[in-house]
Amino acid sequence: MEQTKIAKYKFLAEPFHCDYSNHLFMGHLGNHLLNAADFHSTERGFGMNYLMPRHKTWVLSRLVIEMDEMPSSYDDFYVETWVESAMRYFTSRNYAISAADGHMLGYGRSVWAMIDTQSRQPTDIFSIHDGAINNYIDKDYPCPIASPSRVKMGDEAVKVMELKTRYNDVDINGHINSVKYIEHVLDLFPVDWYKSHFLKRFEIAYVAEAHGGDVLTFYQEQTADGAYCIRITKRADDDATETEVARGKAVFIEK
Amino acid sequence: MEQTKIAKYKFLAEPFHCDYSNHLFMGHLGNHLLNAADFHSTERGFGMNYLMPRHKTWVLSRLVIEMDEMPSSYDDFYVETWVESAMRYFTSRNYAISAADGHMLGYGRSVWAMIDTQSRQPTDIFSIHDGAINNYIDKDYPCPIASPSRVKMGDEAVKVMELKTRYNDVDINGHINSVKYIEHVLDLFPVDWYKSHFLKRFEIAYVAEAHGGDVLTFYQEQTADGAYCIRITKRADDDATETEVARGKAVFIEK
Repeated sequence: MEQTKIAKYKFLAEPFHCDYSNHLFMGHLGNHLLNAADFHSTERGFGMNYLMPRHKTWVLSRLVIEMDEMPSSYDDFYVETWVESAMRYFTSRNYAISAADGHMLGYGRSVWAMIDTQSRQPTDIFSIHDGAINNYIDKDYPCPIASPSRVKMGDEAVKVMELKTRYNDVDINGHINSVKYIEHVLDLFPVDWYKSHFLKRFEIAYVAEAHGGDVLTFYQEQTADGAYCIRITKRADDDATETEVARGKAVFIEK
Repeated sequence: MEQTKIAKYKFLAEPFHCDYSNHLFMGHLGNHLLNAADFHSTERGFGMNYLMPRHKTWVLSRLVIEMDEMPSSYDDFYVETWVESAMRYFTSRNYAISAADGHMLGYGRSVWAMIDTQSRQPTDIFSIHDGAINNYIDKDYPCPIASPSRVKMGDEAVKVMELKTRYNDVDINGHINSVKYIEHVLDLFPVDWYKSHFLKRFEIAYVAEAHGGDVLTFYQEQTADGAYCIRITKRADDDATETEVARGKAVFIEK
């Protein structure tokens, strides 16, 4: 079947995936974007299911989501996704999130690498089906949000949480689940904070892989009004040596 | 539209909802059962969406899930749900979980109360649409697993984890999400434990409500080979007084 460049998927804001303000949690929205990416790439011949037996996989490198509004519980909503560009080792994939009545709720951008699952080294994206991904690039479809930024942090960052990763943090690959990082970062802010603040933009860069049992340490620095940068390190339970695994930024606006 | 007593819903074992063994997490399965219950009751006129404006809601009192097999990532699976019995203040709802090819994966049982959201007191289930729920009771559809048991714990229980609840733990009602308790209990067991053990049966009784910011303490006691009972208490962050909020039991078999 001939596939379009852009795919559109319907999701439901499940009631138990909504926060106390009755809106979808950002972590669950992130999960839906990752699902949309997975469905889109699978339907076009370069998805995880095709790659895994060939010892290759997609690795999420950066994700940014910027919302005007979050779906409420029981809302249907739509995620469009498409590939904006592809290079040998990285591809940019965008998302447009809309309500059932068609109005836009927000957008997302992501950067993915393809790696060899045995060597853990980057592998050539164009080697898959003779560069099939190039047939699906749409450079022009609008995604009016800023690209993931390089999250700059100074020496001001304060250690705010330490967390031992557990069974539910670990994904199919044995690594800490990308979505769990989003949840852990947003858990740094008190429940009451969300009563008066709307999470306008969230971005995260995945630097290295952590594994179940690793201890994550979260360092936070306020960089502007409502803007917080977070650095996450891992260490073994019995070792004080920390290695950076991710860097995120949350930008809130007052409700 | 005339509704059947039993409803059947299709779900997908999403890849990011699977553990490192490539099988659906029990917490996510629990979430799907709660969704099925919600869809079934909504379609028959006694769901949350009908109750909420009338200051009533369903409260999950007990849940037990017993599995022969867990769906693998990308598997479609089905959840059938029906009301086995209804009394004035409690109703029993069952679940049958099957694979796409029709073979049974497992079953679930649950007990729900209906409460007044203002007084937080039990309210008469039969007051909704002149006892509409009675039109949908199926006593005979098979659910061949034991009912939720009274989890008996002695003085042997050992404190194994303390956890401050955070933003992502809190549901629409401002309480700790029922599914999060399941995840936190299963996180008591090391990641490696799940490499050699299959979670055969999980049950939980919800005793009292906890709120975001409460500190949960987990006490664990092994009661038989592979069987672990867990008592969860809550306390305010600045107060040592503990109140029991839930009691669970996990039964593992060796793989």
